[in-house]
Amino acid sequence: MALIVQKYGGTSVGDVDRIRNVAQRVAETRAAGHEVVVVVSAMAGETDRLIGLAQKLAPRPNERELDVILATGEQVSIGLLSLALQEQGCAARSFTGGQVRIQTDDVHTKARIVSIDAERVQQALKAGEVAIVAGFQGVSTEDEITTLGRGGSDLTAVAMAAALQADVCDIFTDVDGVYTADPNIVSEARKLARISYDEMLELASLGAKVLQTRSVEYAKNYGVPVHVRSSFNDRPGTLVVKEDASMEKVVVSGIAYNRHEAKITVTRVADRPGIAAALFGRIAEANIVLDMIVQNVSQDGFTDISFTVARADYGKTLEIVQRVAREIQADKVMGDDRIAKVSIVGVGMRTHSGVAARMFSALGKEQINIQMISTSEIKVSCVIEAKYMELAVRVLHDTFGLGAQAVAEEQA
Amino acid sequence: MALIVQKYGGTSVGDVDRIRNVAQRVAETRAAGHEVVVVVSAMAGETDRLIGLAQKLAPRPNERELDVILATGEQVSIGLLSLALQEQGCAARSFTGGQVRIQTDDVHTKARIVSIDAERVQQALKAGEVAIVAGFQGVSTEDEITTLGRGGSDLTAVAMAAALQADVCDIFTDVDGVYTADPNIVSEARKLARISYDEMLELASLGAKVLQTRSVEYAKNYGVPVHVRSSFNDRPGTLVVKEDASMEKVVVSGIAYNRHEAKITVTRVADRPGIAAALFGRIAEANIVLDMIVQNVSQDGFTDISFTVARADYGKTLEIVQRVAREIQADKVMGDDRIAKVSIVGVGMRTHSGVAARMFSALGKEQINIQMISTSEIKVSCVIEAKYMELAVRVLHDTFGLGAQAVAEEQA
Repeated sequence: MALIVQKYGGTSVGDVDRIRNVAQRVAETRAAGHEVVVVVSAMAGETDRLIGLAQKLAPRPNERELDVILATGEQVSIGLLSLALQEQGCAARSFTGGQVRIQTDDVHTKARIVSIDAERVQQALKAGEVAIVAGFQGVSTEDEITTLGRGGSDLTAVAMAAALQADVCDIFTDVDGVYTADPNIVSEARKLARISYDEMLELASLGAKVLQTRSVEYAKNYGVPVHVRSSFNDRPGTLVVKEDASMEKVVVSGIAYNRHEAKITVTRVADRPGIAAALFGRIAEANIVLDMIVQNVSQDGFTDISFTVARADYGKTLEIVQRVAREIQADKVMGDDRIAKVSIVGVGMRTHSGVAARMFSALGKEQINIQMISTSEIKVSCVIEAKYMELAVRVLHDTFGLGAQAVAEEQA
Repeated sequence: MALIVQKYGGTSVGDVDRIRNVAQRVAETRAAGHEVVVVVSAMAGETDRLIGLAQKLAPRPNERELDVILATGEQVSIGLLSLALQEQGCAARSFTGGQVRIQTDDVHTKARIVSIDAERVQQALKAGEVAIVAGFQGVSTEDEITTLGRGGSDLTAVAMAAALQADVCDIFTDVDGVYTADPNIVSEARKLARISYDEMLELASLGAKVLQTRSVEYAKNYGVPVHVRSSFNDRPGTLVVKEDASMEKVVVSGIAYNRHEAKITVTRVADRPGIAAALFGRIAEANIVLDMIVQNVSQDGFTDISFTVARADYGKTLEIVQRVAREIQADKVMGDDRIAKVSIVGVGMRTHSGVAARMFSALGKEQINIQMISTSEIKVSCVIEAKYMELAVRVLHDTFGLGAQAVAEEQA
């Protein structure tokens, strides 16, 4: 008998029939003798409907009130799922974030979980009930309703699993797991049976949309095994777990890409202390988040600085940078929003050398020019022209033998 | 400067434009220098939509979970109204029932308010904010979400007014006040400037749908002046207040009717202790509420018993009564669902005699047969054939000079 936290997203509870299906799946897990805590999102479309109503009244709605409104989406879901379970003869009880209680800081619309007092949930489990917890929401110490930001339900599930010391946190989604690459681009892409937290973190932050970065970080910090699996079938998905020795044998676990960025370059920036700070400070003031930043070694006391931002922030950033460039007397500002970032990720890189070189050479053979490079311990990212993105992903998948390797692993 | 509680129903906040209108009205009251607490219902149709979803999953949904689901309707309204007010430059802050905090017992879907701790609302008022409170909902001592039953938002408003010792509780509705009779039936019906709690209670329980009985009782117990007025214009409505000497001069204040009842008669019931108890006990067990009960003096040790029930309960009640009638060896069970109840209400009856006789004689003149009679200190009700209902209301309105009298009162 295990204690299992299951998370179902908005599509899985999108209508009454789907809620009934989720209830059946939960009831089966319960019938198999496990204790079950279910975390649910708002019904698909509901959060957008509520944001739409709010924005009709206030183009930039007050975030405290927005949280009051948005939190209702999950509250409806927990009540409905609880009813569906009871109707199938399975005892169930719903809990809002405040009832659990999921304590957060007071940063509305993107609150952080501070602590979880899961006593009421434990009591429900002890009473033989399935506990159904509203994802995405919590309460501040002032008893204000907060929300955790988009994808916050994953975080709720992982945090509940940590608080309850659950055996596993099942994240049910519309994909069957984590793949070596996007199967829409690489037909040979293989599902990974296991992946380490660190690799998953890199993949998540690099644009693979399976799990939110924050949920993976939380799972890593508390050692929660996360099982990413399909809500449409019973097959095992991908287990996100602590790194072990066998994982290091695999040099590259997956290829990620992101085509929602843009690149800006400022040339001939005086290489003096405070100059870069002036530039990036002004961008930060506008709440624009930078991704990659590359600065070359200076020549004659001048240097070129390049960086990438989300494509949605491109215009706004360009304006700011042009203003600052005049002030700091830089030479030119160049921008390009037809770029893509492709990345290879793998904990094996720590112990294998020449991985980056193999990547660059593989891209070079296809005449794909590398515009920017950024590396971490377990990943290498390259910015390239957007039109080559699919080709680059396929080439890298092939270069690092991911199709074959995954097969071997599944057979092992 | 006054402290005013305003309550707006579901129609008044039925869409984004109407919410904007409510916000404007609230902002004007605030701009006139008053402190304002607003209580709102769910947007029109929302509660029914949520009940529909719940019933698709569970024909008879668990009431605890139903409350979790239903409470979201008002939560969305308070957030949206708060945004609309802020957009008009008026500081506002929303409060759920739990945040206020409105403490109730734990009877889900029809909880009673036990106490209100209005400290947070008072803090908001002190900070110059309009406080927007979710109607219809509260929390039990176990921190469970409860709802107060249909019309519960009126009760929330009156209870908030009592807790805050507000100067007045404005109930905005789609009628402009309390009339001497239904204007759809009596064209000469006049709006009453003032009415006593007791009269309003009789009118509410007799089928005039302006205010819920429980709200009026609460207002009476705490001496809250309630102003029933139109949400479509600024004209004064009807003030529901403590009885004063001038009210007693008016013999009859209004005529009420109810056409949603049915009558059942059991003949030749043995007039022995315990027999009536057997009959009514079985009806009560089925959770059927009786309205009028009439038992004639017995002849030869037998009596006839008649009573009325809501028409929706007619079939079910008839079945039960037929079964019991066999057991207690009564003679016959007769039922009639084509009846109506007309009533005259007025605190002046306490000090004026012959009022009932005038009523019976007026109905008799029109050949309207009276089937049952029931009286209280300040009302007389008659059950008649349904088809005569409108006629009876008009005749009584005329007999007691209500059209003219109201005019005189308004001119005074």
